[in-house]
This record gives sequence, C-alpha cells and structure tokens, in this order.
Amino acid sequence: MIYELGTEEARILLANGRLAHLGCVVDGDPYVVPLHYVVDGGFAYAHSGEGRKLDGMRAHPRVCLQVEEIDGEYRWRSVHAFGTFEEIVDDVERERAFRLLFAQFPRLTPADSVRRTGHLDAPPVVFRVRLDHVGGVGEGEREP
Amino acid sequence: MIYELGTEEARILLANGRLAHLGCVVDGDPYVVPLHYVVDGGFAYAHSGEGRKLDGMRAHPRVCLQVEEIDGEYRWRSVHAFGTFEEIVDDVERERAFRLLFAQFPRLTPADSVRRTGHLDAPPVVFRVRLDHVGGVGEGEREP
Repeated sequence: MIYELGTEEARILLANGRLAHLGCVVDGDPYVVPLHYVVDGGFAYAHSGEGRKLDGMRAHPRVCLQVEEIDGEYRWRSVHAFGTFEEIVDDVERERAFRLLFAQFPRLTPADSVRRTGHLDAPPVVFRVRLDHVGGVGEGEREP
Repeated sequence: MIYELGTEEARILLANGRLAHLGCVVDGDPYVVPLHYVVDGGFAYAHSGEGRKLDGMRAHPRVCLQVEEIDGEYRWRSVHAFGTFEEIVDDVERERAFRLLFAQFPRLTPADSVRRTGHLDAPPVVFRVRLDHVGGVGEGEREP
C-alpha cells in the first residue's frame, strides 16, 4: 500500500539525493529535465547553461523538484519539493553556490561546464530553488 | 559536447524506455511524477489512480514525458516527448491499452493496481499521450 512520507523523512530523502527531475512551465506548458542539485538550508542549488529551462523559469519561477529512491518494484519512495526559482547573480553568492556544487560534484568545474555547453561566451548560470513545500509518498516497509 | 538526437534516435529511445518522468501543470504550476509507460503507434499509454496528476491533466492536457538513458556521468541521452493527454473511457480501447501495459509490466494487474492505490471503489484510470513532438539531446560518443 502507498503511504505518505512524514515531512522530516521527505526532507532527508531530498537532502540525500543528487539527481532530481525538475518540472517547470515553458510558454504555459510543462517541461521536465534531469538536474543535479545540492540542498543547503531551505534551498536547492543547481547550475545550467542558457536554454529553454532557464528561459521558462525566469518567466514562470514556480518549479517542482521530484526525487525518487527505488529499491524494487514495490519498494520505493518519491519526494516532491515545490519552490521558487531564484537566479544567483551576486558574485559572492555565486562563488558560495559553486563551492556547494563542487563539494558534491567534484568533476564539475565552471570552465568545464562552459566548454561542455558549447556557449563559450556565456558563463554558466547558477540558481537556487527556495523550497516552500516538501512532501512525498512511498511503498513497501517503512523506514524504522 | 552535448549534441541533439535525430528524430528517429529519439523515438527509438522513447519506445525502448519503461520509466518516464511526466511533467504536467496543476493549478498553473509544474508537477512531476515517475510513470511507467508503453509506446504504441503515436501514443504513450499509462495508467494511474485518481489524484493530483489526473486532475491536472484533465484541466490542462498538455504534458511532457522525459526519458533518460545514463551510461556514465558524461555519457547519457535524454528524450523529450510532448503531447496531449487523452483519458481512455471506451471499454474496448481500455482493454486494448491494458493488454499493452500487461505485456510490458506482467506484474501489473488491474485488481492489484486498484488494491495498491487504496481506492477500492475507483477503477484505475487508463490514459494515453498523443505524441506530437519527440526530440532529445545526448553527450558522449554517438551511437554508430
């Protein structure tokens, strides 16, 4: 039977995750992308090259981060985190956010990220999602 | 470097996938859920218990299915399929859709599905997404 996760359990699962699926609204319609992220305080931090996702979030800042942990067909947990997109433009804040991301994803470097997106002139965009609601559901035996 | 998938490559990746992340719009905001699906013809078929996702898609039928295949940090492909939600209510069509789903997911049975959602009185909803655009991106060596 499917059960609701407690808020604390949902927050821990979100904090321990690395890969989310980000839902945003682009031109009124849904758009989903996989996204590496780091949670710090009440925020999820991530970075991205310019493109459809960023254009969408700038115009419609409400987003949904969904993270799952699957241990079997009938044993899984899924978290939904809702919040508001905030682009990080302040240099000090940008550096802090990059440090958080590098600590979790050591192979990521800003230069590498720029090179890989092919936008040599555009520095990667760093953003965070101000989380205002985190909840989830699971199936199988509950965590002790 | 990240490259765009050809339409045929994207369609094959979508057809071979089993688990998508479905993005829909609920009350104007994005919502993402993992979803098992089967592609047949120009449609992706799935089933669901009643809830937020179905309420959202009934009100705003445009959806996004995103499917990824990850072989490594720098070797992955991701497909976006956009389309329109259609609830399947005709009995013959429902049975056909269930057969497609059972063939892919043998452990799924309608009774089981009803039991697991806890909605004993509500039969599972079967729906399809009429696909109108499939594309994607990848990173790493291209398929030969």
